[in-house]
Amino acid sequence: MTGTDIRLSLHVPARDIPVPGSVSAQAQAVLAMGPMDLPGYPPLEDIAAWRAMIAARDAAIRPHLAARASRIVAEVEDINVDGVGVFVITPRGAPDDGRVFLDLHGGGLIMGGGDCCRAMGISTADRVHARTWAVDYRMPPDYPYPTPLDDCVVAYRGLLRDHRPEDIVVGGGSAGANLAAALVLRARDEGLPLPAGVVLLTPELDLTESGDSFQTNLGVDTVLTESLMPANLLYAAGHDLSDPYLSPLFGDFSTGFPPTLLATGTRDLFLSNTVRMHRALRAAGVSAELHVLEAAPHGGFFASAPEDRELEREVRRFIDAQWTY
Amino acid sequence: MTGTDIRLSLHVPARDIPVPGSVSAQAQAVLAMGPMDLPGYPPLEDIAAWRAMIAARDAAIRPHLAARASRIVAEVEDINVDGVGVFVITPRGAPDDGRVFLDLHGGGLIMGGGDCCRAMGISTADRVHARTWAVDYRMPPDYPYPTPLDDCVVAYRGLLRDHRPEDIVVGGGSAGANLAAALVLRARDEGLPLPAGVVLLTPELDLTESGDSFQTNLGVDTVLTESLMPANLLYAAGHDLSDPYLSPLFGDFSTGFPPTLLATGTRDLFLSNTVRMHRALRAAGVSAELHVLEAAPHGGFFASAPEDRELEREVRRFIDAQWTY
Repeated sequence: MTGTDIRLSLHVPARDIPVPGSVSAQAQAVLAMGPMDLPGYPPLEDIAAWRAMIAARDAAIRPHLAARASRIVAEVEDINVDGVGVFVITPRGAPDDGRVFLDLHGGGLIMGGGDCCRAMGISTADRVHARTWAVDYRMPPDYPYPTPLDDCVVAYRGLLRDHRPEDIVVGGGSAGANLAAALVLRARDEGLPLPAGVVLLTPELDLTESGDSFQTNLGVDTVLTESLMPANLLYAAGHDLSDPYLSPLFGDFSTGFPPTLLATGTRDLFLSNTVRMHRALRAAGVSAELHVLEAAPHGGFFASAPEDRELEREVRRFIDAQWTY
Repeated sequence: MTGTDIRLSLHVPARDIPVPGSVSAQAQAVLAMGPMDLPGYPPLEDIAAWRAMIAARDAAIRPHLAARASRIVAEVEDINVDGVGVFVITPRGAPDDGRVFLDLHGGGLIMGGGDCCRAMGISTADRVHARTWAVDYRMPPDYPYPTPLDDCVVAYRGLLRDHRPEDIVVGGGSAGANLAAALVLRARDEGLPLPAGVVLLTPELDLTESGDSFQTNLGVDTVLTESLMPANLLYAAGHDLSDPYLSPLFGDFSTGFPPTLLATGTRDLFLSNTVRMHRALRAAGVSAELHVLEAAPHGGFFASAPEDRELEREVRRFIDAQWTY
């Protein structure tokens, strides 16, 4: 039934993969755009080049984020929590019941701060239909690990002063999901009460990039088109990439972790991150649900497709379920 | 952020994909064996060649199935249910409480009958730790669609004569999952009571093969190394491949479907089948849970790895939960 020779790698010939007919027209349009053409990462030590790259990428995405946020009616208050900037966002019609979604933004652990964080937070608040704290955590090159995670912990501690933990759900996408999961591990290790639930979307949970999809979906994911290792090293600043506070996938979940929703796509470079975390949580007996979007690259379909809407409904249902006590 | 040219397909260069370190040693050993080397499908009209191929493939897998079954202590009764052969398997220690797992075997809708069905049924009974009815449904080339599905419906009707529907869980892997899902659609359309739950493992739910993973995982899945379309056409015998009784993925689930567990692997050619079915069920409000094994090809790791054990525990927990009423 099986080959008898032992092979250390699998040769996969060159292929032309058509846009699948199994997704919506909007999703097909996104896939038909092909790979994103982004400038590569600078050398680790060239801080000026990193600053320029981060500024350029933030500038490229800012108009899209701002346009999306501008369609949402929400009050935004800019507060300072023990030195950490937080946007407190209250979408129109959201219940004023003390419940808060703690949103940690994405951007590869190096981008997406400031007004990008604000705009992404507004979109998140709209989707979860709840007051949202969007944490503008500091980032590399000036503030590598542990500052970004420390800032998230400070914001969470601040939130706990006026809110019950069962009224808090923590979440994020991509790098934000890294920080969300790491925050929960830190909170647990520091003896803080845990939030009611965790949302990990297309999560960057393994900075060592050991998962199989880092190989199998390389060139297939049109959004993450290369290894993020340079950014991971900039973030880690010499710390062990496999430390659970940097790569929460390697955490010990046997002593408790809140109910968790995880989502990814079949073309996502982070597919393995997501399914491995789901399995790790389940193996520890944690209530965890997994959703995988057909043919979706990292981050889904730019929030443009019915598939994105469907996932948003799952997320909102999940959050509401954690808040039904 | 995105390319501006519209591409109809994505060019993915040739790659050598290493055996991932993210799975158990046993799973790595399976992946290191490389692609299965099986003879191709014969021309559709060459019935003698089909018979020979089916016999050869059954003969190749029979010793493995028999060896696995021989380690399990179970009583096996061979019964006839209105013309359909069923192996009634009672593993030692399984509760005699009227609860039955209705097992529909895999084998591409053309293989796995007779003693293969019996051996697979014994393994299934052991895993679910419950009395199991393994249906030896007839198959092509002599008995193409609708006979195989008809046989499954006959067995289910037979089961309902002596059992409450809430005591029945229906399931299968690969082609067996096709028949399990199609059986539920048939039962619903014929006004029969539905089973308590459905288990769909690495499911062949779309005989049109429209999902993205039929492309993205082609050459990556080392078990299903090519399209199954020739077998699908032999099975369909001229019927529309997209009919929900042949491709249950295209069924209407809005009028009710039992709670369902779905499982696949990130390298599975049927990854898209599985996640699309999960989404279709969830969109219809059905309780459905998804499990995806890291780096697993079609069918997992030959039941040899801890990952397989972990999935078995999920399946057994799911079944037990449906039976807690």
